[in-house]
Amino acid sequence: MRIAIDAMGGDNAPQEIIAGALESLEYIENDQLVLVGDEPTILSLLGDESRWKHNICVVHAPEIVGMDESPVEAIRRKRNSSISIMVKLAVDGQADAVISAGNTGAFVAACQMRLRVLTGVQRPGILVVFPTFAGPVALCDVGANIAPKPLHLYQYALMSMVYVRAVLGQSHPSVGLISIGQEDAKGNEVVKAANKLLRDDKRIPFVGNVEPRDFLSRPADILICDGFVGNVILKLTEGMAENLFKTIARELEEHKPDIVDHFKPIVDDLYARHDYSEYGGAPLLGVGGTCIICHGSSNARAIKSAILRTRDQLKFDLNQKITENL
Amino acid sequence: MRIAIDAMGGDNAPQEIIAGALESLEYIENDQLVLVGDEPTILSLLGDESRWKHNICVVHAPEIVGMDESPVEAIRRKRNSSISIMVKLAVDGQADAVISAGNTGAFVAACQMRLRVLTGVQRPGILVVFPTFAGPVALCDVGANIAPKPLHLYQYALMSMVYVRAVLGQSHPSVGLISIGQEDAKGNEVVKAANKLLRDDKRIPFVGNVEPRDFLSRPADILICDGFVGNVILKLTEGMAENLFKTIARELEEHKPDIVDHFKPIVDDLYARHDYSEYGGAPLLGVGGTCIICHGSSNARAIKSAILRTRDQLKFDLNQKITENL
Repeated sequence: MRIAIDAMGGDNAPQEIIAGALESLEYIENDQLVLVGDEPTILSLLGDESRWKHNICVVHAPEIVGMDESPVEAIRRKRNSSISIMVKLAVDGQADAVISAGNTGAFVAACQMRLRVLTGVQRPGILVVFPTFAGPVALCDVGANIAPKPLHLYQYALMSMVYVRAVLGQSHPSVGLISIGQEDAKGNEVVKAANKLLRDDKRIPFVGNVEPRDFLSRPADILICDGFVGNVILKLTEGMAENLFKTIARELEEHKPDIVDHFKPIVDDLYARHDYSEYGGAPLLGVGGTCIICHGSSNARAIKSAILRTRDQLKFDLNQKITENL
Repeated sequence: MRIAIDAMGGDNAPQEIIAGALESLEYIENDQLVLVGDEPTILSLLGDESRWKHNICVVHAPEIVGMDESPVEAIRRKRNSSISIMVKLAVDGQADAVISAGNTGAFVAACQMRLRVLTGVQRPGILVVFPTFAGPVALCDVGANIAPKPLHLYQYALMSMVYVRAVLGQSHPSVGLISIGQEDAKGNEVVKAANKLLRDDKRIPFVGNVEPRDFLSRPADILICDGFVGNVILKLTEGMAENLFKTIARELEEHKPDIVDHFKPIVDDLYARHDYSEYGGAPLLGVGGTCIICHGSSNARAIKSAILRTRDQLKFDLNQKITENL
């Protein structure tokens, strides 16, 4: 397998990206990593060639898409950016998968424009495996499609089922639809119409609408929502966990300084067990390739994990299964 | 002042509603409470008449709108429900304010249909004062309007500013717009157009788009969003706080049972200081009356708090100020 990685994308690029690639070498056997970005920088960070020359090659890309650039415009204008050149490798059959922790919108746009969507798929969606305390929940879409039609949401359910069955090994994953009330009649027009599509397809073990209040109790294996709402859920949950843990720690320090040292390891352990970086990136489902989106703040561990999970995912022939199921 | 209360609305009605009304008597001096609902039930729960006869009167309503009924249909069909009869009291000038912890959609629909919107207001919105650890944040809308136009969001900002200035006493409240990226160009079409309206009105101290990740750090005094997203934020935050605290407590019990007893009071205190029930209900801004929506799970303390805050709010002549500002 040849996995291409955007060496320049992400808050901690290129250092942590290169470090993650190097850390993965121990596990990837005969697979190849293609690091795309500024060649001199990458080579200097890779260091001693004898360590990596059998598994890594570098493809030069002189431009970078900034984290805050307008996605479609950046992809159109910066033909020589690491994202553009990396996706072109996939189009040309020189990479089996592409990974980026950079500008998500630009990466999604490049994959969608250059790799095209799969036959039958209307719009690609980003699936995140969300580590709740009750187990992993697959949430789709979290930002690829912020103005979806009901049919898009319905297809996200079918594509997510393929992913969860193959990659997470759950044979009959249940599906819920995020709304602001459990009854079928609750929600905006898109949600109500999507509810009907999901309810009418007997192949889907549909649990109905799910309220965000129950999200962390894992009300279904898969939760479907529009990309705006999914992104809000993702970011709010992340910010809130951080904020709550910090606040509790501060309160303890102020009022019970003697037990802070007992509390911290518990939280650290909770964090570690539910760390997004273990889940190794979010697949963009529905495009004609294997595209893995990493968190912007990915560290070396997250990148290593993304590389290893991508390698596993390539074995499942997901796109073939998605096409068959739609 | 005459404040009407839906005695039958809410998960803990009528017991906790009546108990809250009785608890408020100590503070309301010469104001009158009108309890609307099943008269025999209310009278039996009120108990000894000498305690309340100077401040409470009961108006009989034989029907109840269930928590899960379809709002508009329930209001049209159940003319004798506690919500309908209560709102009619306001229309007829027999109540200065109405309070319900019942079916939010039905209450909003009744207020909007019977009390009408204020001159210049396009759509009413629900404002919730959200107790973050960094201080209160006013979030509007949290569910009255799940398919808003950009102009509606813009008007929510103006109405929220009036409320926050008058009721929370912040002289120059700043405004943020919830989106999935800080740049003005991030978000769906409604958010992008609302961003422009807010940016162009020099009366509004607009901080721009705010990401949900920063919500609990209180990035602005007022945050504006569509009702679907606002409701997701409200419910997710609530469910998550509960879930996280429970998980930490469970982990402590398992691994550090000796410090659980030290941890619990800290969390209880945090909860108490950031308890929604202290904030006493959410105003429905923009209708021709004073309508206060309480949490469905309100207990007596929340109802008491809502009654007292409603009484305070009536002094500010908010609707006059809203009309002047739009």
